[in-house]
This record gives sequence, C-alpha cells and structure tokens, in this order.
Amino acid sequence: MTQKTLALKIGAAALLASALALTTSAQAANNNIGGPLILKDQGSFFVGGDTEFSDAISGQTSGPGGFGYSNSDYIKVNQMYVQFQVPMKSARNIPIVLLHGCCLTAKTWEDTPDGRMGWAEYFLRNNHAVYLPDQSSRARSGFDATTINEVKLGQKPATALPNVFLFGRVSAWDLFRFGPAYPTPFADEQFPVESLSDFGNQVIPDLNATLPTPNPTYQNMANLAILAGGAVLVGHSESGFFPEQAALVNSSAVKGVISIEGVCSPLNGAQIKTLAKIPTLIMFGDHLTGSPISASLWSSALQGCQTFVQQLKAAGGKATLVQLPQIGLHGNSHMLMQDRNNLEIADYVLDWIDKNVKQNHGRALVGKNRNASDN
Amino acid sequence: MTQKTLALKIGAAALLASALALTTSAQAANNNIGGPLILKDQGSFFVGGDTEFSDAISGQTSGPGGFGYSNSDYIKVNQMYVQFQVPMKSARNIPIVLLHGCCLTAKTWEDTPDGRMGWAEYFLRNNHAVYLPDQSSRARSGFDATTINEVKLGQKPATALPNVFLFGRVSAWDLFRFGPAYPTPFADEQFPVESLSDFGNQVIPDLNATLPTPNPTYQNMANLAILAGGAVLVGHSESGFFPEQAALVNSSAVKGVISIEGVCSPLNGAQIKTLAKIPTLIMFGDHLTGSPISASLWSSALQGCQTFVQQLKAAGGKATLVQLPQIGLHGNSHMLMQDRNNLEIADYVLDWIDKNVKQNHGRALVGKNRNASDN
Repeated sequence: MTQKTLALKIGAAALLASALALTTSAQAANNNIGGPLILKDQGSFFVGGDTEFSDAISGQTSGPGGFGYSNSDYIKVNQMYVQFQVPMKSARNIPIVLLHGCCLTAKTWEDTPDGRMGWAEYFLRNNHAVYLPDQSSRARSGFDATTINEVKLGQKPATALPNVFLFGRVSAWDLFRFGPAYPTPFADEQFPVESLSDFGNQVIPDLNATLPTPNPTYQNMANLAILAGGAVLVGHSESGFFPEQAALVNSSAVKGVISIEGVCSPLNGAQIKTLAKIPTLIMFGDHLTGSPISASLWSSALQGCQTFVQQLKAAGGKATLVQLPQIGLHGNSHMLMQDRNNLEIADYVLDWIDKNVKQNHGRALVGKNRNASDN
Repeated sequence: MTQKTLALKIGAAALLASALALTTSAQAANNNIGGPLILKDQGSFFVGGDTEFSDAISGQTSGPGGFGYSNSDYIKVNQMYVQFQVPMKSARNIPIVLLHGCCLTAKTWEDTPDGRMGWAEYFLRNNHAVYLPDQSSRARSGFDATTINEVKLGQKPATALPNVFLFGRVSAWDLFRFGPAYPTPFADEQFPVESLSDFGNQVIPDLNATLPTPNPTYQNMANLAILAGGAVLVGHSESGFFPEQAALVNSSAVKGVISIEGVCSPLNGAQIKTLAKIPTLIMFGDHLTGSPISASLWSSALQGCQTFVQQLKAAGGKATLVQLPQIGLHGNSHMLMQDRNNLEIADYVLDWIDKNVKQNHGRALVGKNRNASDN
C-alpha cells in the first residue's frame, strides 16, 4: 500500500505520521526512474467539437443555475480533451497517443493505483512526446446531457435515458482478471490488488451511449495524429480497436497502431488493405480463461484478433499478436499498464516501436513553446 | 485565433497548411515565458472516495456491459482526482491548489482557449508546486450514476433525476461577462472572445446535484492541503468559497485562501474567528453590472464578500478584496484566469502570496520522486 492510497483512509490526526512512514518504500521503488524531468513543452487542448442547439441544457424550466436564462442554448458536444507533454530529446522519436478504455480516463496511463510510475511518464522519460486524451463523452471531454434533462422535464420517457454504466468491485475482479473470484487473486497476479480501493476511484460512469454513430472519438483520434505530426495510436479494452477505427477514417498520420486487450472487429478487404500499411501490435495479458464469467469474452476477443492479424499478414502487413506469457511475462491482468511489471511491458512496446515504426516523424502542430531548443 | 482552435474546424487537407501558418504568432506571444520546464516530480492521485453498494450500476437488468454480471455491486463515489507538478526550485514556496468552477474542469487553469499559458504553468514557472483537482462528481473524479439508472429501470420517477446543467453560448456570454449581449463584447473586453467556440469545449455538465451534503469536495480539499504539506487554496465561481469551506472542515494545512468571482456565504462568529487566522484574498473582475441578466447576481456577490472581508478584519484577520479596475486592470471577465492579461493578474496573486502567506511550508506527502535534489 502506498502513501497515496493509505493516507486518506485514516483520520487527519494520524495522516501525517502514517504518510511520512510510508514515503521511504515509494522512494526506493523509483530510484531507477526518478530524478528531474525536463520538458520542452506541455499543455492541453481540444480536438473536434460540434455546436448543437439543445432545448434542455438543464433539468429545470427556469434554465441553468436558475438565473433567468433560457433553457435552450447552443452547446458543444463530441469534443475530445487532450493533455500533452514533449520531453527535450524527442525530435527523433514518434509521438505516442494513449487512449483509455471503458469507465476509465487518461488516469489509466498515469501513476498506478499503488503509486508507481505509469506508461505516460515512462514513455516521456524514454524521449517520446505523449498525448493523453479523455474519450469524447468521458471526463474532461464532457458529454451531452440533453436527453437526461428532457426526461427530467417530462419531454421524453425514462426508457430514452442513455445506458450509463461502470464496473463495480466484484464484476471488475472477474472482467479485469484480478483472480478467479473476488476477493481471491491468482497466485501469480501482477495487478496490485491491495490497491483495489484506489483503483475503484478511477472507475467512472461510461456515457458513450450518448454519442452519435460513428463514435466521434475515431475522427478526433485521426485528427490528433495529424496535429502531433504523426503518431502511434494506442487503445485499451473498449478503445482497443479505436486506433484501427481512426486509421480507417484517415490513416495519413497514423504511423503505428497498438491494440491492448481489445476486440478486433471483422473488417472487409478494402479496410484490411488500408490497415496492412500500418505496423500493428496486438497485446493480451495472462489468465484469459481464468475468470469464470469473462472467460468466453476473452477467448473470443483473442480469436478475433488472431484472425485480424492473419488477414493483415496475408495483405502484406507487419502485424504481431503477443500474449505476454509467450514472452516470459506471467500473471498480467487486463490492466497490464498498471501491473507490477508494467514498465517491463512498456519496454517491450518501446522496442516494438523502435523496430517497426518509422521514427523521424513530422513536426507537431500543437504546443506553445516551439522556440525551445530541439535535441 | 490559435492553431489549436482553428485547426480542427477545417478539413484534414487544409489542416497542415493552416496550422503551420498560425504557429508563428503563438510563438511570438510566448517567447518571454517559454523554454524548458524542469520538474522535480509530477503525477496524479485521488483524495477521498467512499465505498457505496449500488443496486443499479447500469441501466439494464443484464448488468454492466451485458456480460452477465450482477447489476448490484460496490462502487466508489465522492472521490477527487488531483494532478500535481513540482518544479525544481519550489522548496521555499507554498504549494497552490487551483479548483475550477461550475461546468468546468481543471482545464480552467491550463492553456487558455486561444492557446496562451494558463495560471497552472505560470505558477510552476514561478517555483510553486501546483495541484489541479477536478471537483468530486466532475470529469476524472467521476460521479454516482445510480439514480439515473434507477430511473431508466423504472425504479424511481423521472423527477428523481439530478439537475444536470451547463451554461450555453448565449447564457455564458452574459453570466461570464464577455459583453452586454451575445455576440457583442465590451469595448475593453479582455476575454479572447474570438475563441468562444474553443471555450465552449471546456464547458461540461455539472453533476454536483448527485453529491451528498455537505459537498465532499470541502473535506477532500482540506485533506489535499495536508498532503501538499500546507497550501494556498484557490477557488473560482461555483467553488469560489470552497477554500473557506475546506478550512472550516480542517484549517490545519490551509495557509491562505483566494476566492475568485465567487459567492461569500454568511457565516457565524465562530466560523469567522477560524477563518480570520488565514490570509484571505477575494478577487473580482470588471463590468460587474454590465451584463443585464447577471448584473444583480454579481452586485450581490460583491456585497456579500465585502461584508465577509469586514467581518474577517473585525476579527483581526488579514483580508483583501480587490476589484481589478481598482488596481488599473480593466475589461476583465468572470474567466479572468483566461483573459488576455491573465498573467498580469497572476503576478498580482503571486505578489499577494509573497507578502501575506508564510512560505516555508511543510514537506509534501504525495509524489514519487522525492529523491530528486531539493533546491
């Protein structure tokens, strides 16, 4: 348990002492990757966003805030919030876009639930610019609440409400393969299950059911790759196949796709031909059939992705499907970017990018400190 | 208009050329504050979070994802997500916590809608550690969707739905004092109104109506101040008085409070006595009565805060209320941290902190790179 997780479980009086006592172990664990971080640039911006005229921007007829405003107004929807950081020595390395999965946010890629370094900072420290979006309709990207308000106002039936959902502690234990049944972990489980409560803080309602079809995140990811001057797109779980979907919208700046623990949708010949031009890495963890309820889901996901990789190869593509046990990494969960060996897996990803993706990318178009010296 | 705002309004073909053409002006504007940023530490974590047993974690009886899970499970609610950055030379300076207002997120304090530097990075570059929370129930902090799902499932009436709301383009123009009436700006308006569409992307639904009373963000902010080793708490608009509310929960680590464009609630004598021990800055912009619908709201907010400051002073407190025109800054909107002269206002804030807040604070308890050298 880390100082972060523990500290707020206890009262304010005990807080100082306990947190101080726990500082040492966190230090020791990160000595090899700590130290100053030198950034050439950082910031945040939005990609996309459509103007919509909503007739229910609040759930009360007196309008938002009750301040006497009309309850009809123009709002923005479908936008995608992105944070980015550019390390000093990144000029030769391709930017990496890290997109989170269901019921999660960009937090997925930041510090782990037990306070270790996540992939975002690790890729930065390995000299890649990193872009961290929240999916359209999630977290800082906002969502369209019009239907919820229309139902509250009696303009639509309750059945019109979007299906808002997340995974609770017990269902996540199964689906994310922390163990065979809550609260028992697998003997070799790599997820820091002692920090399950802190992980629960990351799990927030999924509002993708409020989005139009196709999901605007596809287009937004394709445009983000252009703004980054070319990028490797990484998706996870719900968004595992979003990099491929983005490339099918516009592949011009998608220099590599990495699909982690996702579902590879069936595609037609023309789509396979387009994607075969982009180096592709598909990754799964361990224990795919070890959790009773999700066993068939994960088997089927693996099979679908095996078929996809075969199709890409038949079309002349560079495609790899790796199950981590095949490369000697055992016990990895669905949240492998937060597992205890998360940086070993990150090393595999970095090595795959080095060997498969053209590195001297274009010039990023977003950012404000372009005058900083380029290394 | 910046490359960020403009770039995604146009098609992919025109995107490269336009964005490149616009890079120059953004560079020029930031020459004085650009250059490498050296961090001792950065990361993200959660403060608080309660475990709740929800009987409707999705809006379908087949449970979340339709994967065969129970629709009842343990979820986390009331947690507060926080990002932080610690610059190398911060040891002598008090950390600053920046909390956003209604329908907004921590994005408030990052790059402005027209792509200039926000207060978060500016305070960092002035050697203060900066903590950026999303309010509990907003953005990456998640929210409790149980009631929405119960209504969808027919277990509760539509009237039980929370009042979810935001401010649209026309109402924001009035409330945020961009001008006397949409789309006309004040002659001396400082908000970058040409970037209104990009600002609209920041405005997301407010779900505070889903929270228990008292708002858990108060306790979370007080605990965050402890974890930061003492901090100045800054609130804005809806959260303008949250720093004071946090100090009333636990003032032990609240070393200064700054309330920007908020409503100062009436307090009793004991509460005033507690807050009088903490240096307090209240700030308002310009044109408080210039927008017809919000004129009475802002007059009343100003009056309430004038009373509050008088009460603090009568109790021996160090308290200042500043209307920006009084110090020669004119045309500032409700979103003054994003206005064209936002860094001039930031300088005033930094100067106020220097002169009023004890600077040699305690040692922060969160963060992972504590072994980095301390300057």
